[in-house]
Order: sequence, then C-alpha cells, then structure tokens
Amino acid sequence: MNQPARRVVIVGGGFAGLFAARTLSSAPVRVTLLDRAEHHLFQPMLYQCATGILSEGKIAAPLRDLLRKHRNVEFVIAEATGIDAAGRRVLARRPLGGQIEFGYDYLILAAGVRQSYFGHDEYAPIAPGMKTIEDAMKIRRRIFGAFELAESAEDPAERTRWLTFALVGAGPTGVELAGQIREVATKTLRREYRRIRPEDARVLLFDGGDAPLAMFGPKLSALAARDLGKLGVELHMGSIVTHVDAGGLEVKDRDGQLTRYEAGNVLWTAGVEAPPLAAAVAKATGAQQDRAGRLLCGKDLSLPGHPDILVTGDMMSLDKLPGVAEVAMQSGLYAGRKISHEAQGQTYDKPFRYHDLGSAAYISRGKAVVSAFKMHFGGFVGWWVWLFIHIGFLTGYRNRVGAILGWWFAFTRDLRRERTFTLDDMPLEAGAYEEPTTSTISGNSVP
Amino acid sequence: MNQPARRVVIVGGGFAGLFAARTLSSAPVRVTLLDRAEHHLFQPMLYQCATGILSEGKIAAPLRDLLRKHRNVEFVIAEATGIDAAGRRVLARRPLGGQIEFGYDYLILAAGVRQSYFGHDEYAPIAPGMKTIEDAMKIRRRIFGAFELAESAEDPAERTRWLTFALVGAGPTGVELAGQIREVATKTLRREYRRIRPEDARVLLFDGGDAPLAMFGPKLSALAARDLGKLGVELHMGSIVTHVDAGGLEVKDRDGQLTRYEAGNVLWTAGVEAPPLAAAVAKATGAQQDRAGRLLCGKDLSLPGHPDILVTGDMMSLDKLPGVAEVAMQSGLYAGRKISHEAQGQTYDKPFRYHDLGSAAYISRGKAVVSAFKMHFGGFVGWWVWLFIHIGFLTGYRNRVGAILGWWFAFTRDLRRERTFTLDDMPLEAGAYEEPTTSTISGNSVP
Repeated sequence: MNQPARRVVIVGGGFAGLFAARTLSSAPVRVTLLDRAEHHLFQPMLYQCATGILSEGKIAAPLRDLLRKHRNVEFVIAEATGIDAAGRRVLARRPLGGQIEFGYDYLILAAGVRQSYFGHDEYAPIAPGMKTIEDAMKIRRRIFGAFELAESAEDPAERTRWLTFALVGAGPTGVELAGQIREVATKTLRREYRRIRPEDARVLLFDGGDAPLAMFGPKLSALAARDLGKLGVELHMGSIVTHVDAGGLEVKDRDGQLTRYEAGNVLWTAGVEAPPLAAAVAKATGAQQDRAGRLLCGKDLSLPGHPDILVTGDMMSLDKLPGVAEVAMQSGLYAGRKISHEAQGQTYDKPFRYHDLGSAAYISRGKAVVSAFKMHFGGFVGWWVWLFIHIGFLTGYRNRVGAILGWWFAFTRDLRRERTFTLDDMPLEAGAYEEPTTSTISGNSVP
Repeated sequence: MNQPARRVVIVGGGFAGLFAARTLSSAPVRVTLLDRAEHHLFQPMLYQCATGILSEGKIAAPLRDLLRKHRNVEFVIAEATGIDAAGRRVLARRPLGGQIEFGYDYLILAAGVRQSYFGHDEYAPIAPGMKTIEDAMKIRRRIFGAFELAESAEDPAERTRWLTFALVGAGPTGVELAGQIREVATKTLRREYRRIRPEDARVLLFDGGDAPLAMFGPKLSALAARDLGKLGVELHMGSIVTHVDAGGLEVKDRDGQLTRYEAGNVLWTAGVEAPPLAAAVAKATGAQQDRAGRLLCGKDLSLPGHPDILVTGDMMSLDKLPGVAEVAMQSGLYAGRKISHEAQGQTYDKPFRYHDLGSAAYISRGKAVVSAFKMHFGGFVGWWVWLFIHIGFLTGYRNRVGAILGWWFAFTRDLRRERTFTLDDMPLEAGAYEEPTTSTISGNSVP
C-alpha cells in the first residue's frame, strides 16, 4: 500500500532551515520552505555588506537557486504568522497581502530572531539594527553619508557630531562594525575629503558587560579589547544606555553616573528577541518562552506534547546554547535527520548535542580573534584563520570567488566600492532634524 | 602679480562632468564638482545591474575616490537648482535641506537628462524608468518579484499578467532590458519554480518608430530585430502608447487601432528630458531650450552671450548629436581643454567636433550589435566586440575585474546573484492593487 509522502513545512531559510531542507532532500517527504526573503543570508558577514566591502549578492544566495536540484523541496515567499496545532496548519502572509496556509505532518520552526530594543522600539528609526540586508544597506548609507554631512556642516559641533559613531552592544556584530568604521575612516576615505579629516571620526562602543565579546570567554575577550584599542575604538564597558535620540545618547555607568554623548550616528547591535510567530506558537501549543521570547524545547528539539513540531536555530531555547550560525546549522541538520528517519519508519531517539567548533570575530584588516581546535588566535594569525574558515563556509562557489576578490581589493587597495547613495538618502536616513538647516554659505574651499 | 586661481564649477559627475574635471586637474584653476549622487555611474551597463548580473558597486564608482588625486578638485554632494548669471553663482540644495551657493568664473553644465513620460508623470510610479541606480534597483525587484507573484497567483489570468513584461521604447535601454528579461526567464530561473514555467514569460517591446535601435542606422537595426526575434521578444513597432495602468497598457497602431495588453510589469525606457535646472538656466541667461528642454549652445559649447557658461553631455542641444556616453565624454573633454587654455591666457577657438567612434547594444549572451571602425557586427561576433569595448571603458581596475567575474558567471553558469528582495518589497513595488487579494489557499503543491 502506497502512502502519500509526509509533508514537512520549514519556516525560515536561514542556516537552520536550509540545513534541514537539504538534509530532507533525500528523504521520502514533500518539503515546503517559507521565508519572507527570497534569499538565504550569510549573516556573519553582514557587517562587510554594511561597510561597503561586499555587495548584497555576495552574502546572500537565492533560496530557489540553492534548492533548485532538490525536487521534493518547494520554496514559497511568505511570512508565517501563526499555526493551528490541532489542525496541523501553518498560516502565512503572502505577497500583496493575501493569506495562505500549509498543512504539515512535521513542522520545523527556524524563523530566527530579530533586533530587540528592550521595550524601546522608538529607538529603532534613530538607531538601526543589523539583522537583515535592508538593515545593512541602511547602515551603509548612514556610515558613508555621515562623512558627507560632516564635510558640509559649518558648525564645528555639528561636524564633530556627524563624525561620532556610537555603537550599542559589544557582541560580534558591534565589535566588527566598530572595527570596520575605524578602518573606513582611516583607510578607505583617506584623502577623499578636503575640509574634514575622516580619520578624526570617533567610534564609541558601549556595553553593559565587563568586556567586548564576553560570550567568547576571557582570552578572546582580552585579545579583542587590545585590538580594538589599537584601532582607536573607545570602549565603554559597564555602561547601560538609558536614552537615545537623533543627536546622541545617554549612558549610566556602574556608579549610577549619567553621561551624555553627542553622536550623529547611533547603531544598535545590542539584543535579540524572537519574532511574533514564537508567541503565536506558544499560544497554540502551550509551549514556554524564555526572556527573549525563544521557545523552550526538549532534547529532541520538539515542543512538549508536540512531537511533530521541532524548533531549531536562534528561535530555540535549549541549554543556554548561543545564537550563532553553528548551533543553527547543527540543529537544522538534526531536525532533518530525525524526520528523515521517522519518515522511513525508523525511530530516532538520539538527543541533540551541540559540538562547539569555535568562535570568531573579525576586527579589521590583519586583526581577528578566533577560537578553534581548542586554541585561541588573535591579531594577524587570528585573521588568517578567520579568512580560511569563512571562505569555507560561504554558500556557493561564485560567492567564494567574489568575496575573495572583494577582500583582496579591500585589503590591498583600501577599496570599498559598494557604497552608492544620493543626496535624497540623507534627510530620510538622518530622520532626526525636523527643521532642515537653511543657512547659506559660499562654497569652494579649495585653496 | 599673483592672481588667485580661477574658479570652475561643474554641475554633474557623469561622463561629461568627470571628463571635464579630470582635464582641468592639471590646469591652474580651482574646480568644484557638484552631484546629487556620490558616484559616477557607468550608465550604459545599468541594465546589467537591473537584471542581477552586476552589483551597484561594479557600475558606479565614488566620485571622491575618482578625484582623490586631483588636489585642485573638490567634490560636493548637492543638487544645483539655479544660477545667478550676472553674479556668477550656482545655487544648490545640500544634504538635510539646506542651501549652498558656489561662485564661479567658469560654469560647466553637465547635469544630464532624466526619464520623460511626455506629460504623463502619473505613469512614473507604475512604469519605472531607467536612468539611475535607484531606478535599476526598483526594476530589479520588479523583474524578479514578478515571477514570485506569478508563482503565488491562483487565477490563471493573474499569473499570465505577472509573466507579461511590456517595455515602452526600443532604444538601447529598451532593447537591452528586453533581451535580458527573456534571458532571465529562459536561463537564470530555469528549474527554480515548481508551479510556473518562467520561460513562458512574454516580453513585448513597443515603439512608435519603424525598427528597434533606429538611431544606430538600418543595418544594426535589422540585426537587432533579428536577434530579438530569436530570443522571443515580441516587437510592436509603429505603436504609440496611449494609456498605462497597473494592469497593463493601451497602444495605438499606425491605422489608429487601439489595443489593450494585460501586463503586470510595464517598464518605461521611452524618452528623456532635461532636468528643471535647464529651465532655470534658460531663464537666467535667455538661452533657448529644444523640445526636450536641452540647452541650445554654440560651436564652442557656450551659451549665447555667456562665454563663461559651457553646456556638455546630454544637457546640450547641438547639431542633433545623440545622447550617448561618447558625446558626453568628448564634450566634457572639450570644455575642460577650452577652460584650461583660457586660464593660461591662451585663446582656444577650435569649435567642438564630435568623432563618432561607433555604437553598441547588448542583446543577450552571445548576441550584440556593434558598429565600430566603420564596420557592423551582429550576433556572436558583435558580442565579442562589445565585451572588449566595454571592459576597456569601465572606470577603474577593480570594476573591470569584478565585471568580468560577474559576466563569467552569468555566461557560463547562468548565475545572477545580485537580486535580493523580500516579501515587503512587493506590495510597495506592485503599487497597483489598493485592495490586497485576501483569498486563502492550501499550499504544498509538490507531488
């Protein structure tokens, strides 16, 4: 008797969802992968897109192209909004506002997390986060636009404000962005300006913890602090941001002292939270959420009482695993294997176990911190290790060659060509000033 | 007696403005170059950006970087809005809405042209033009998004509408876009979809004239028509567009017959007009404008009665010269040389003469039409000639290497990786439907 193949719905095409889909491509199942974007994003290099080294296409690959050969996998561009756990259906928003639903026998939740402003969503338009390609493009226009705004400012205080970058959150993204902005200022833009000195740009990095990259352990943390200091990044550890506006931010230190910093550019890389889908799933299944809204799951990644729903990647809350690409890949692989076994009538009761292969953060050209193979690397050696690891992990041959080319030019010639913007990008982006400055000056400063 | 160096203001950083600035970099003058964008755009390859082969950074180069070594040239991001001819001042809008003005001894107008809808600006949001990077990005999201919309459409008529691309205007941009869209449909997206067949996409090319690329002469025109036909582009010559809406367009043929075509994607590559600055200059100087608003100038490119104001590139109306990159380069070079001579006390009364080095249009992989060295090339030979010419003209070594890499992957592996978009790009882009469709279907069509 021929049973129809079981239906697997995967929500999210990040590392977890993609690894699950690929694992299931040889199983006797029909897979539907949903994502709100048409691409899989190599999120760990988003900061290279935000700082003009690589184009969007180098760190993103079309999911349809990646899944082209997996004939039992279908991709649908749609945003999952909720589930009907009893009826085994996923509800989703589709293009142009319609609704669509997908029946499933197995559901893999892999929708990731988004930037959290810890209850202060009003900061979002002022201080963009760094989770999506759109975020990166916005930050790119902010960074390169800030130097133009400084160049055209007449008031020295305004000029200084545009040349001040305040980054909130000293995790990998904050550390990498901070390093890159100093490199843009001191290398990329060298000799491009006539009135300002781009190298005067200040980069302030705020974090409530004791050290940057605290999650990587004290050794890497110390290496990162040293390298950031050498680059001229000003570290403000033990600092809680209490207020953000278009002109700067206010920070409380360990002694409760409040200090205001004038900064025309505030970037937010501080925290994450699960998307609204997690709450909808929790409501539909009775599952628990942790403080960031992630879904608590069992050792087999399933939700309690719902063996047909597996949680993977950043969306899952299990054993305090960190929200890194590797956890996502390994959990996606596990979910795919488990369903693959069960679809073939085999039991699969091996629990999920995460194998920590290491951590890495890129600080600037010639400087990176890496822990791998039970060793720690910093500075130049760390940088080479970082390069090799990341070339290996990039999705697709073309992206690898393209990225190597982009790096080559960035490293040897200080070129960051991916940085187009126009005059009209700026008032919108700056957002801040309701009343535009209307002074009239006479230009032409070239001696 | 030391006189202060004369001030030259150049409005626009396209081919004309950039060539003028570079020519003046060795003259005893101070140059200020204004542009609303921070980049110089290699406009002839904009369609490659719009169809996902090349990233923005490959066809655009930061003007500051290009002018870095020319220490007597200053770049300012600002949009010229008018001039005071008697007081020799250019007025401009600068970032965040302020105004700035620039005194000049010489003014070079090189602000180009923009898309014209021939009095129907209401078509603009429905049928985007192709003049800027922003335009190309919008068209890119439209093209790749249309296939997603077709895939998720349930109504067969809606599906067909999304798979129909109507291009208005069979000049180089229209012809190149038409060829590329067919190539995307038949090559790039092959086997990426499960419900639709991308190769079913229809590309209709409308033009009031007798043949595509009419400006290139009958030989190239015939070659182009043949190659487009082979690709499956449907040519509708002698057709005047009388109405455009979100669902399609209406066309009048030579016999006065009106026909409506249903098309979810209308792209406008039909006409150009001078920017408002031209009218402001005409008012301030008494200069005449032609039908497209371009400024009529003398054989020395100066405005009548204003030897200190030179018009270059697409903005000038002289001897019915075509609006192509080469005219812009040569006129910019001429303006630079003339001012350079005069600044050194020499007279320069050689009139401007355009040397036609040829024309070229790319149709698809392995197909291009080129006239050069008094010869005509079509098909595969034309394509090779096109490749060599365009690699030579690209600005900067990195862009050349990057473009060759992008082409290599596009040609050998059908990869167009520069095509990221999300669900949310679509309702905005489609714009058309005020009421979103709200039907609910059950997905999962994989057998």
